Amino acid sequence: MKPFPYLQKANTSFTDREVTKIGDLMKEWDGETIRGVGLIGAHLSKSSISHSGACFAPGTIRKALSGYSTYSVEENIDLANWIIQDLGDISMHITDVIQSQNRIYETVQQLLKEHSSWLPVVLGGDNSITYPSIKGFKEAKGEVGVLQFDAHHDVRNLEDGGPSNGTPFRSLLETKTIKGTNLVQVGIRDFSNSKPYHDYVNKHGVTVYTMKDVRQASMKELMESSLKKLEQSVDSIYVSVDMDVIDQAQAPGCPAIGPGGMDAVDLFEAISYLGEHPMVKGLEIVEVDPTVDFRDMTSRVAAHVILNFLKGKQRGGLTFD
Amino acid sequence: MKPFPYLQKANTSFTDREVTKIGDLMKEWDGETIRGVGLIGAHLSKSSISHSGACFAPGTIRKALSGYSTYSVEENIDLANWIIQDLGDISMHITDVIQSQNRIYETVQQLLKEHSSWLPVVLGGDNSITYPSIKGFKEAKGEVGVLQFDAHHDVRNLEDGGPSNGTPFRSLLETKTIKGTNLVQVGIRDFSNSKPYHDYVNKHGVTVYTMKDVRQASMKELMESSLKKLEQSVDSIYVSVDMDVIDQAQAPGCPAIGPGGMDAVDLFEAISYLGEHPMVKGLEIVEVDPTVDFRDMTSRVAAHVILNFLKGKQRGGLTFD
Amino acid sequence: MKPFPYLQKANTSFTDREVTKIGDLMKEWDGETIRGVGLIGAHLSKSSISHSGACFAPGTIRKALSGYSTYSVEENIDLANWIIQDLGDISMHITDVIQSQNRIYETVQQLLKEHSSWLPVVLGGDNSITYPSIKGFKEAKGEVGVLQFDAHHDVRNLEDGGPSNGTPFRSLLETKTIKGTNLVQVGIRDFSNSKPYHDYVNKHGVTVYTMKDVRQASMKELMESSLKKLEQSVDSIYVSVDMDVIDQAQAPGCPAIGPGGMDAVDLFEAISYLGEHPMVKGLEIVEVDPTVDFRDMTSRVAAHVILNFLKGKQRGGLTFD
Amino acid sequence: MKPFPYLQKANTSFTDREVTKIGDLMKEWDGETIRGVGLIGAHLSKSSISHSGACFAPGTIRKALSGYSTYSVEENIDLANWIIQDLGDISMHITDVIQSQNRIYETVQQLLKEHSSWLPVVLGGDNSITYPSIKGFKEAKGEVGVLQFDAHHDVRNLEDGGPSNGTPFRSLLETKTIKGTNLVQVGIRDFSNSKPYHDYVNKHGVTVYTMKDVRQASMKELMESSLKKLEQSVDSIYVSVDMDVIDQAQAPGCPAIGPGGMDAVDLFEAISYLGEHPMVKGLEIVEVDPTVDFRDMTSRVAAHVILNFLKGKQRGGLTFD
Amino acid sequence: MKPFPYLQKANTSFTDREVTKIGDLMKEWDGETIRGVGLIGAHLSKSSISHSGACFAPGTIRKALSGYSTYSVEENIDLANWIIQDLGDISMHITDVIQSQNRIYETVQQLLKEHSSWLPVVLGGDNSITYPSIKGFKEAKGEVGVLQFDAHHDVRNLEDGGPSNGTPFRSLLETKTIKGTNLVQVGIRDFSNSKPYHDYVNKHGVTVYTMKDVRQASMKELMESSLKKLEQSVDSIYVSVDMDVIDQAQAPGCPAIGPGGMDAVDLFEAISYLGEHPMVKGLEIVEVDPTVDFRDMTSRVAAHVILNFLKGKQRGGLTFD
Amino acid sequence: MKPFPYLQKANTSFTDREVTKIGDLMKEWDGETIRGVGLIGAHLSKSSISHSGACFAPGTIRKALSGYSTYSVEENIDLANWIIQDLGDISMHITDVIQSQNRIYETVQQLLKEHSSWLPVVLGGDNSITYPSIKGFKEAKGEVGVLQFDAHHDVRNLEDGGPSNGTPFRSLLETKTIKGTNLVQVGIRDFSNSKPYHDYVNKHGVTVYTMKDVRQASMKELMESSLKKLEQSVDSIYVSVDMDVIDQAQAPGCPAIGPGGMDAVDLFEAISYLGEHPMVKGLEIVEVDPTVDFRDMTSRVAAHVILNFLKGKQRGGLTFD
Repeated sequence: MKPFPYLQKANTSFTDREVTKIGDLMKEWDGETIRGVGLIGAHLSKSSISHSGACFAPGTIRKALSGYSTYSVEENIDLANWIIQDLGDISMHITDVIQSQNRIYETVQQLLKEHSSWLPVVLGGDNSITYPSIKGFKEAKGEVGVLQFDAHHDVRNLEDGGPSNGTPFRSLLETKTIKGTNLVQVGIRDFSNSKPYHDYVNKHGVTVYTMKDVRQASMKELMESSLKKLEQSVDSIYVSVDMDVIDQAQAPGCPAIGPGGMDAVDLFEAISYLGEHPMVKGLEIVEVDPTVDFRDMTSRVAAHVILNFLKGKQRGGLTFD
Repeated sequence: MKPFPYLQKANTSFTDREVTKIGDLMKEWDGETIRGVGLIGAHLSKSSISHSGACFAPGTIRKALSGYSTYSVEENIDLANWIIQDLGDISMHITDVIQSQNRIYETVQQLLKEHSSWLPVVLGGDNSITYPSIKGFKEAKGEVGVLQFDAHHDVRNLEDGGPSNGTPFRSLLETKTIKGTNLVQVGIRDFSNSKPYHDYVNKHGVTVYTMKDVRQASMKELMESSLKKLEQSVDSIYVSVDMDVIDQAQAPGCPAIGPGGMDAVDLFEAISYLGEHPMVKGLEIVEVDPTVDFRDMTSRVAAHVILNFLKGKQRGGLTFD
Repeated sequence: MKPFPYLQKANTSFTDREVTKIGDLMKEWDGETIRGVGLIGAHLSKSSISHSGACFAPGTIRKALSGYSTYSVEENIDLANWIIQDLGDISMHITDVIQSQNRIYETVQQLLKEHSSWLPVVLGGDNSITYPSIKGFKEAKGEVGVLQFDAHHDVRNLEDGGPSNGTPFRSLLETKTIKGTNLVQVGIRDFSNSKPYHDYVNKHGVTVYTMKDVRQASMKELMESSLKKLEQSVDSIYVSVDMDVIDQAQAPGCPAIGPGGMDAVDLFEAISYLGEHPMVKGLEIVEVDPTVDFRDMTSRVAAHVILNFLKGKQRGGLTFD
Repeated sequence: MKPFPYLQKANTSFTDREVTKIGDLMKEWDGETIRGVGLIGAHLSKSSISHSGACFAPGTIRKALSGYSTYSVEENIDLANWIIQDLGDISMHITDVIQSQNRIYETVQQLLKEHSSWLPVVLGGDNSITYPSIKGFKEAKGEVGVLQFDAHHDVRNLEDGGPSNGTPFRSLLETKTIKGTNLVQVGIRDFSNSKPYHDYVNKHGVTVYTMKDVRQASMKELMESSLKKLEQSVDSIYVSVDMDVIDQAQAPGCPAIGPGGMDAVDLFEAISYLGEHPMVKGLEIVEVDPTVDFRDMTSRVAAHVILNFLKGKQRGGLTFD
Repeated sequence: MKPFPYLQKANTSFTDREVTKIGDLMKEWDGETIRGVGLIGAHLSKSSISHSGACFAPGTIRKALSGYSTYSVEENIDLANWIIQDLGDISMHITDVIQSQNRIYETVQQLLKEHSSWLPVVLGGDNSITYPSIKGFKEAKGEVGVLQFDAHHDVRNLEDGGPSNGTPFRSLLETKTIKGTNLVQVGIRDFSNSKPYHDYVNKHGVTVYTMKDVRQASMKELMESSLKKLEQSVDSIYVSVDMDVIDQAQAPGCPAIGPGGMDAVDLFEAISYLGEHPMVKGLEIVEVDPTVDFRDMTSRVAAHVILNFLKGKQRGGLTFD
Repeated sequence: MKPFPYLQKANTSFTDREVTKIGDLMKEWDGETIRGVGLIGAHLSKSSISHSGACFAPGTIRKALSGYSTYSVEENIDLANWIIQDLGDISMHITDVIQSQNRIYETVQQLLKEHSSWLPVVLGGDNSITYPSIKGFKEAKGEVGVLQFDAHHDVRNLEDGGPSNGTPFRSLLETKTIKGTNLVQVGIRDFSNSKPYHDYVNKHGVTVYTMKDVRQASMKELMESSLKKLEQSVDSIYVSVDMDVIDQAQAPGCPAIGPGGMDAVDLFEAISYLGEHPMVKGLEIVEVDPTVDFRDMTSRVAAHVILNFLKGKQRGGLTFD
């Protein structure tokens, strides 16, 4: 018998016995084998060109995610059998940004080498985490293809400062961590990129789908042809979502918001489609700044990106039986 | 001659002699016969599982509604001849939620019995008001069909607490107030419902249109087939709108917001289509929380739901000549 | 050698040597010849029926505009060669609204007469500036056709007060500054206009496209037929954008927001299409109230309206070589 | 018997049978004799130099006031027998500020002439209403002394624009509506006034108490000596409260907030002391802008100013028996 | 050796090895003996007359408290040896307010009976929790004296609804849980209480210190005489802090804010003085609503109330050696 | 004759010919000799332990400052003859915090060496700028005494990270840039500092005045004795104001707000008293974060700190004749 029947842990929320929430599947990692998706926070945003509170996003995304049901009513898929490891956050140095980026690299590569069945879901942080994260991913996974959802090319020069949230794909290309021909940028937006940088990615053979392309084609077609191309030339695929790819009305909490962006449902469909592919082995979400968001709307969108990634993986055959 | 030409009632707003506003049609009810639509507030939200200020929505929706013109420029329909009775609010008990719900039931059923030509527009409040409101409606109107616009099934078990804003359709089905086969749920959203509850509504023969269905079919088709089915088996139809069926970008002031929801224009079209049908005799709007809204955007959407209901009714032949 | 290498002007923002921003093209006007687009602020909103902070919009729109890149990645058009003159603001009288409106008229007409190659981009302020601005425009440019993007007809009677933000097109028509047959209103919204005013514009032969028309036709068709008609009967065309034509989710910072409005991308396409036409020689943006906006979202939309106007002009052959 | 026991007027708030609220004493004026205090709104703020929403203050102050109890527990004084007439608002012209100011003048003077027992409590609006209000007051009441609580002298020149919220006391002095020697300014703040204007009021013989004076003397002494002086030379006294006299921490909702201001309790004590004096026959509160306030804190302070005025009057012998 | 040197638990905050924080002393209760202060949450606010989010205060107060240092630099007292048990929250029923109140009563009395050395710090919730909490306290501790810091008497009649946040002291007096002569109310505010309720507490022999008393006496004197009186007639003393006793500028996050309130430093001094007394064995903090607060300022004040209580206790000889 | 009489520079604000504002005295520095006070921005806050937008404070403080009148009505002192040089901002590196701190050091020391009559007013930024700024100051000015207004000792160890906003005085003491006996800390607050750090400053002979000391003594006495001590042992004095020394109600925009802080008027009196002293040759203001402030209240307080510094200097004989 419970001695004090009404005492409960502080901040306990309502529980319905007939509802399984993602939060029920999430477990603090115990260091043992990781199967399937595991969350890891890279709460770095001192590397941003403009003031950014993206360092708080791992917390708000986890919170949003844990409140959703495990059940996709649209496709009759239930994730209730999953175990989602929460590996925690990579600790950041207070003042040394470069060291913080190195910690991301070292942690991701070491973890992936020791836990090859881990499908990392990296929660930024700003876009600068992409370079160390993919560098670590590549060392464990071989040649990497990247599907980048982003309003921006993010190939700024490093002479004017950085490595910052404007430079990750420059670093990846210059260091030959990835080849330009293995990079697909989706959602590149008008008046948000300079001509020299557009020329730069073209020169490197990057596949670029602008928002005009997204409006005129179906998302499924774009993903299909992207995967078809990448599966010939890479060992594994990493999906990078800069949340500012979404229209400002639907994702108001990104540092660089603007009109003319992608519809969230299109992104969800792209992600579940990609998740289904067995070569897609990593996901990151960056540039969510909860301090300027409205009612955590942008973190809720981020949570649905993860949910659709999980749905795709289960559709693709990943099981926990 | 007016003695003090510039003195006016406090808080008077600007009047344009060539504009008829809905507010000009609204009259505090005098207890006499009610023809057509009459507003009634059910400002209960202490019954919500999570903290909710939906109790303030009757005020903000009335205010938004009263500022709109009576004229539909899109269809050249003018409601300027209507009289919209405002029956006021059902008083709520400060601490006894069950009694508050009973007051809703008793008031709605007694009013409908004595004023059979009243078309109630019930302004919640949270979704818990749906059970007593429809129970009262049913006792006056016979077998009831329900068109429910909602992201959620709202059939939670009552063992874990309630009757709450999560349980109204469970109560309606368990008490056989309505039959599952006479319930249509539109806008049910991914990862916002559990599998057991989806199985529950399926078992009861509820018609369910998920957001995927909404995206793939035309709203008119869904409404047409829903009405066709209901008109065979019920005496009258009640339309229940949980505003969280709308996407969070367009209705940011609901307690349970999220991405991937319905477009407001689709809802308006559905409502005016339904309003046109003579068997549709009641409308409720719930789950608008003005305390977390942005610029009363969600109450403005709610007002347009009512406007489209009125437009449908006039299209359907309801006149005040 | 720079004596203090790290000292910079206060509030300097980050500069990337490979990015040309619109701000880099903007120059305080020196009184010399103006080629192409020049910005001018008409920060009047004491003329608004309801409380409005639209007087702050010239500042926020300039700021948003100056941060965007000059490059349209969607159409591979770079505006980097433009010079955008900033003529400054028209000073407003503190208490005399009529005089303020006259100052707009006098300044616009005098400037246009002396600088015939100037393509004015007038930054309101509220919609009352439209009457003096177009009146000035007309005196310099001959018969004027107007493409008005607006949720409202804006032809209120003047007996009930004004000239206000509700009366500009009434004044233009009554004073025969423009002919009704040379006015096209796009985006007129349900329940936001009275029948008498709709009858009024019909009587004057105004072309009206409601939001229903916008949803059912392509924007390009509407613009094509509008231009075809106007180019027969006018000497030059002025584009007036009341930002409340856009849906409240995408332009939350207008005084008279509501659901059921235009999609921003549709507006951008219309504007660039119009800008391409050589007879289109003026643009104004009104009814952006930054004091009730969220993260300057509405000013960002306004900036994209201007960007698309510039893109259209360049597509139409305007060059700075 | 009440037919529908739970139906109540919309927006009814909780009633406790043992609590008399100020709202219970407030009555819409029926045109009959006014005894004692009567509220009148002068919701003008288009006359402000900077953007101001002070036009909304009559509404928020009334709302705050009506919620307070009638009972002063500190002095065991109950106002429960009062009748507080609400005369409504003076209608403002949409665009003609000067006419709006004239309406205030005409309405106040005519009302006071016909209702000599009325003690006006004028709810601004901005400080520009002070000139027409006192001008009207003077015509009915003879030579006027003014106790002005304000951070600013408000004697700006009119060449640079106006009459605005910066000029009322300039107008009063220049038109000889009041004599400088009959004006007492309390709370004048450092670095918020220019030397020329300080010299101007000195030249006119105005009594000036800066915040330093307020900090160093007791408020009671300042009031005592002010009244002693005025009662020799005037027929009646008008108290003008610009709420920005209060420190920004306690009255954050004034347009011109700043640190180093008066403590609200000191103001309350001054007001009740003044109210007690039989020659004090009018009160105004200006420069409360609810659109920039936090939780109507400043309107709550304004309500307490009125409450203390009423308390003073009752202490002074005004009764309703 | 740590395998992944940079991995840390999610949401870990910065740690300085030379700083002991209260959070370092807080431990989730293991059911064993409780020495000294233990926190318990009573997150009930559905019992409030007006809409209240006070149910969230246990969370925000705990968070604010845990971030403060253990060291009082003003008195050179370090609490670093304390262990502060966190007993968690008392679970609330979703819809049955009376049952929720009973759960508070039952949990507090049972805990106190079994853990007599526990000094409860009860975190509300609204003021309705005071009745069940003190009732439970009394059953374990004998005759109770109460020091109540409050702007309001809180003795509303129960006929008009409740038990609510307006009735707790009525219930305590009517049920003779406490005697009126053993109740001291400090900070009772002008125009915030009705005469009948003031008469009621006088009739019961309650000691009342209004804000005028607080301004005119020293807080120490008031506390001294209060304790002197209570120590003669009671077995133990309970301190109840309704945070709205503080001025609205310093505690803006209470439902019933207003000007003319207590200075926070005066309250802190009172609390540490009371804490020092061995008969003071319980503390509660109620009416903090984080949903309407600014930057958790009111929860920070609440945390300092607890800190001063701890300081007083240590000064009074409570040690953990 | 002005060709376009109503055209003015964008964003021009209202000008009154009889008011001299501080903004009228401020001039962008031309590199020539600096007499008296000159502003310099050190907009660094990536060095903060917790997320901070203090990098925006130079902008908001300049803006607040420029709007105030030059005239102290309290002391009849007019600063209208001053010239206040604005030296601009020290450019910060995007990602290299240490280099940013070095830039502050190098710029301050080089400027002071070349412009010995410059009285620097350094606008932070967070408190980490104090170390490089005072280090630069010292190299030009000899032995430095520091008056630090702060709630915190700011002597954190550097092993746990930094140099951060928690470590500046540790760095100053450890590097012997200043002697502990030449440091006076005023406003140190309860439960906001650890015992080890309090012991540390005691060990170094720092003079510490806690808030209890401030409440019990007069500010003038504390300043008098501080200056008396410092003038014996140093060559020049630097005043450092961490705005969190002020109570959270009056300075709500600091990262580390809390109750129990200093009154702003006390700080102003201290600053003008210090400014009067000829050895006081530098001032800095840090830890104002405009992104979490309310209506720039904290920047307004900062502006008054500077105004009082100027007033003191003029009182002390600094003239511009």
